[in-house]
Amino acid sequence: MKQKRQLLPIMDWGRSYDRDKLVADLLASLIVMIMLIPQSLAYALVAGLPPEMGLYASILPLMIYTFFGSSRVLSVGPVAVLSLMTAAALGGLQLADSAEYFAAALTLAFLSGAFLLILGLLRMGFLANFMSHPVVTGFITASGVIIVLSQVQHLLGTSSHGYTLLELFPSLFASLSQINVSTAVLGGVTLLWLFWSRMGMPGMLRSFGVSDAQALLLTRMSPVLAVIVTSAVVWYFELQSSGVATVGQVPSGLPPLTMPSFSLELWQSLAGSAALLATIGFVESVSVAQGLAARRRERIDPDQELIGLGASNLAASFSGGFPVAGGFSRSVVNFDAGAATPAAGFFAAILIAVVTLLFVPWLAWLPKATLAATIIAAVWSLLDFSIIGKAWRYSMADFLAVSTTIVLTLFAGVEIGVAAGILVSLVVHLYKTSRPHVAIVGELPGTEHFRNVNRHKVETHETILSIRIDESLYFANTRYLEDMIYGMVAEQPNLKHVILMCTAVNEVDMSAMESILEINTRLSELGIKLHLSEVKGPVMDGLVRADFLSKLSGNVYLSQHHAVEALK
Amino acid sequence: MKQKRQLLPIMDWGRSYDRDKLVADLLASLIVMIMLIPQSLAYALVAGLPPEMGLYASILPLMIYTFFGSSRVLSVGPVAVLSLMTAAALGGLQLADSAEYFAAALTLAFLSGAFLLILGLLRMGFLANFMSHPVVTGFITASGVIIVLSQVQHLLGTSSHGYTLLELFPSLFASLSQINVSTAVLGGVTLLWLFWSRMGMPGMLRSFGVSDAQALLLTRMSPVLAVIVTSAVVWYFELQSSGVATVGQVPSGLPPLTMPSFSLELWQSLAGSAALLATIGFVESVSVAQGLAARRRERIDPDQELIGLGASNLAASFSGGFPVAGGFSRSVVNFDAGAATPAAGFFAAILIAVVTLLFVPWLAWLPKATLAATIIAAVWSLLDFSIIGKAWRYSMADFLAVSTTIVLTLFAGVEIGVAAGILVSLVVHLYKTSRPHVAIVGELPGTEHFRNVNRHKVETHETILSIRIDESLYFANTRYLEDMIYGMVAEQPNLKHVILMCTAVNEVDMSAMESILEINTRLSELGIKLHLSEVKGPVMDGLVRADFLSKLSGNVYLSQHHAVEALK
Repeated sequence: MKQKRQLLPIMDWGRSYDRDKLVADLLASLIVMIMLIPQSLAYALVAGLPPEMGLYASILPLMIYTFFGSSRVLSVGPVAVLSLMTAAALGGLQLADSAEYFAAALTLAFLSGAFLLILGLLRMGFLANFMSHPVVTGFITASGVIIVLSQVQHLLGTSSHGYTLLELFPSLFASLSQINVSTAVLGGVTLLWLFWSRMGMPGMLRSFGVSDAQALLLTRMSPVLAVIVTSAVVWYFELQSSGVATVGQVPSGLPPLTMPSFSLELWQSLAGSAALLATIGFVESVSVAQGLAARRRERIDPDQELIGLGASNLAASFSGGFPVAGGFSRSVVNFDAGAATPAAGFFAAILIAVVTLLFVPWLAWLPKATLAATIIAAVWSLLDFSIIGKAWRYSMADFLAVSTTIVLTLFAGVEIGVAAGILVSLVVHLYKTSRPHVAIVGELPGTEHFRNVNRHKVETHETILSIRIDESLYFANTRYLEDMIYGMVAEQPNLKHVILMCTAVNEVDMSAMESILEINTRLSELGIKLHLSEVKGPVMDGLVRADFLSKLSGNVYLSQHHAVEALK
Repeated sequence: MKQKRQLLPIMDWGRSYDRDKLVADLLASLIVMIMLIPQSLAYALVAGLPPEMGLYASILPLMIYTFFGSSRVLSVGPVAVLSLMTAAALGGLQLADSAEYFAAALTLAFLSGAFLLILGLLRMGFLANFMSHPVVTGFITASGVIIVLSQVQHLLGTSSHGYTLLELFPSLFASLSQINVSTAVLGGVTLLWLFWSRMGMPGMLRSFGVSDAQALLLTRMSPVLAVIVTSAVVWYFELQSSGVATVGQVPSGLPPLTMPSFSLELWQSLAGSAALLATIGFVESVSVAQGLAARRRERIDPDQELIGLGASNLAASFSGGFPVAGGFSRSVVNFDAGAATPAAGFFAAILIAVVTLLFVPWLAWLPKATLAATIIAAVWSLLDFSIIGKAWRYSMADFLAVSTTIVLTLFAGVEIGVAAGILVSLVVHLYKTSRPHVAIVGELPGTEHFRNVNRHKVETHETILSIRIDESLYFANTRYLEDMIYGMVAEQPNLKHVILMCTAVNEVDMSAMESILEINTRLSELGIKLHLSEVKGPVMDGLVRADFLSKLSGNVYLSQHHAVEALK
């Protein structure tokens, strides 16, 4: 069913590349570039790194992804959540100076990339499945709150620190007296402009007769406009002298060749963070890529995505960047702009490189408040608190996983939050399967259908106990099963036969098989035979191999109906 | 169904205590005491502690368990595997002298006890279910091998060190030149005597007309006989001067009052070991207690066992002991000897205290080789390599868990071995559920029964695709499910209806529900309706709460037969 996998997906789409696709890709790349520049600068700020590193992280990684990634439209570069996680991971180290901090960022990208690449080569893409959708949504929402709060300082010209509510709130309140009015006005106006351009502007433009597509394009350009206008304002009014913080002088030119650190000590302290960061980046990228691929009836290959993202992060570590992933908004923009192939990403990277080469000196006047406003507007759309209510209504298990993730991310930090979210959802799942639903069933009159005696009016027999086990039998629930069965048997004095109806038993592992044999022995002592019905093929194969059937006191029936007919 | 739980189970059995039970308990306690003394001394040696600590660990912990434990026959004290784990945990620390080593042993017992007690009060006994039977058997077997090898030095009078094959083998071979002939002869003869008394003696005694019960009693006394005779030999021939190592002078008297260390640093370095050790001790104890309880139609309560074992370990830490658990052989002896209530354990503890008070000076002449032989003979019966073959024949998953446990325990150490065993069995289980078995089904002619089209001759319809999913649907397998269904649908061009047969779907979590809705949307675009059949009550309740049914393009049918009848 699956087509043969290529290590270089470019060999699939490259062959049929033509002029139509080139035009589509070039147009998309231009729109993406316009959006990426302010975002890249801003996310570097979130990560606590100099803004040009955001540009660097958007050039080579994006190019490399186009060769190795399996998604046609995923746009790879700095993303909000990973930038926050980078800041949190590096903030936890005792680093001597900013040079060490940059080196640690490169190393984090290197370790994440290596981790992803190795998982990809081992074809372990399925691991992403263990992050449930509610946990990811909860995590992104909570991280978004932290990111927004961490940017308020730049918006107001004050200073705060920390990566949890417990650190951010007190330090924000303490610094309120230091508000710089020029910065706050500039930042506030920019933020209002960005929100209005998303919410109010498209409607207004349409009422002026502008087409939808053009309105959308103008909306997307609003951050770039904000960057240009606010820089010009700072330059013209010399606002730096009234305390407006700007990006300042940054080195011009293409991304430098950099090397991650190979200090074993640094590796040890970053390994855990790198693994978590890579996992989150991968899961987010795959979700975005899969959602977009489905809309075009394309498929993506999670193992190939691991390789693509791994290579991108390695590229980031050697070209002055920091951890990258496929971003949601940038990929959607790329998709909507009509990108036909990954070449669109490649062209966007070239355009960003040109901008980096030519316009970097202008960043000297770009106020940090503008970048903070850009971040807040971008992250705002990621916040989805409705997940809490949805999960609450759906099930205790989902609610527990989501609320743990959100609360711990907000109050204990991003790494603890996401790790706890994964752990809680797995433990809750295991806990549920360790105490399976077990029902006594009877036959619906006039059918061959057996349902729960407590939910349906069904026929039962005094000498036969039919038990349906609603779970695979494995080591975690064998003891519970024994308890349940002995309890049910004790309540029926005239019992001659117990039938375990195995429609829902998808697996019987060795512990469970031994446990059933023990139940069999104890029931035999009481003069009761144990039978099985509706055993699935794969389960039966295992039981036959273990010579289980010769030890069973009763029989195995193809259907529960046959079993009851034969035994009643 | 469950009787009301008492925090002190003694209030259940204490009320009906009478003279018959007293006699039975006193007799059992005498036999257990005779067995426990050499074992307790020997396991202290395994743990790298002075022998009297083995006796101390068999007094107060055993008494305390009789008040708090739920098993009537479990005999608590030093056990082989925990002694090895204690040695491995303490050997990993950089301890200055033997006084620090003893303090660390007390602290390990304290932390294990606290861990068990807390889990018990939180009613987390179900956690023990996550250690599968094959993993426990594999772990005990591999630990047994390490214990046997670690005792060879005492048997030969040489010296070796380490807790893995990689450390033990080289150091054993290097020390072969130092063999002390007197020690080796004494040790060899004792070992032969112990093996013969188990295998050959009972038959010989019976052929002399000794009754089975008496033969068994004599067999059980053989280690005590070995202790007495070899001590006498050493004393008479003054073998200490020819290099036979003995236990030496130990302080006489009752267990001292001791205090664990409350150093936070020590706690941090021992916490992981304590948790693993407590888990193993608990799982082993519960297995033994449950097996014996079943033979008398009694039940044990895992949460109460946690409290009983927790209290015992705390008692060990305050009375000069080290981590304890319910041992297999000693409990079986207690059971076979006819112990009627936990009072038998209490009496045994008093007898051991008396022996400690009176006979400790005699230990000066007890050769370590005798203790080593006792350990080897006792541990030998725990070795069960057949588990590897059984698991291999049964399933790849079980084999992987067992072989990982055994190999890592032998080559990387006990803690890594058991942790990896638990982890591998969980990961393998999750991996399996993340790629469920999915079958296309059809109706068996003349029945209302649906089976796999590949395994049975069944009726199908061109416009209807019936898919049976053999797994609960949860976050880990939703992506896989989408893949499978889209693949199957793509192969049937005339399709109008897809029915998901949910007999084996025991849970649909929020991620899975969202995923089914996405499948529903995509099939609708292709003009195909999605239906469900045989949805279980608890699953249906969740779907109704989430307003799932109004979004589904098709219907939910009570049975697959009804669904096909309605749609064909």
